[in-house]
Amino acid sequence: MECVFCRIVRGEAPADRVYEDGSVVAFLDVRPLFEGHVLVVPREHLPTLTDVPPELLGPYYAVVRRLAGAVEAAMDARGSFVASNNRVSQSVPHFHTHVVPRRPRDGLRGFFWPRGRYRDAERAAEVAAAVRAAVSADGAG
Amino acid sequence: MECVFCRIVRGEAPADRVYEDGSVVAFLDVRPLFEGHVLVVPREHLPTLTDVPPELLGPYYAVVRRLAGAVEAAMDARGSFVASNNRVSQSVPHFHTHVVPRRPRDGLRGFFWPRGRYRDAERAAEVAAAVRAAVSADGAG
Repeated sequence: MECVFCRIVRGEAPADRVYEDGSVVAFLDVRPLFEGHVLVVPREHLPTLTDVPPELLGPYYAVVRRLAGAVEAAMDARGSFVASNNRVSQSVPHFHTHVVPRRPRDGLRGFFWPRGRYRDAERAAEVAAAVRAAVSADGAG
Repeated sequence: MECVFCRIVRGEAPADRVYEDGSVVAFLDVRPLFEGHVLVVPREHLPTLTDVPPELLGPYYAVVRRLAGAVEAAMDARGSFVASNNRVSQSVPHFHTHVVPRRPRDGLRGFFWPRGRYRDAERAAEVAAAVRAAVSADGAG
């Protein structure tokens, strides 16, 4: 089955578009967390963030930034939530960023919980060393 | 009281750093969703995404992208969650992106729920029109 976001990008599947330019399209999520919840997608079929070419990051996130402001203004919100799932919890394997208007006590307060703690400072240092090694190993990405 | 992320950036507050360059610093979140949960911050004190200057978006998100790959590799994860809170649910008013390693059935499966639906197609079109108007009103951002 073909990618539904590719079909939206090409205008073959319906969507309430809110923005588009040569490389990026934004439209309403049909299952919004709150009204005004927008999805920002690259026109090109790129599965996850790590697949987005470096030269597209600036233009793509300029649109995400612009939509964050626009969604807050349009929905009279107090803030926004900007998020992407890569592979796990990613419903459509075409990279997308959720831009969601937020208000205090809107029900997403517990969003980031429960959060844990590192067993001790040594464990945290160990994890940090592993991440640093992985950053080094990838070259300039 | 001074911004804790500014103090970390300057090396005045302790943190397990995993990456840094001239404009961006990344370190372990001390209250991780899962081990390897990293925060990526601009060195400059910029409160939210809409405050980040356009020319910093490319370099900043190149680091976020790189960390997404590194955190997955280092923690042997299957995916990642990449998110920013602007104002609402934002614990520290210095823009930051959470990069969190994900695994199937890691307990965050219900993360994006409950999600609603628009009352009808007219309501969705109305909301889309409001967002489009706000995008236009902001100029090129």
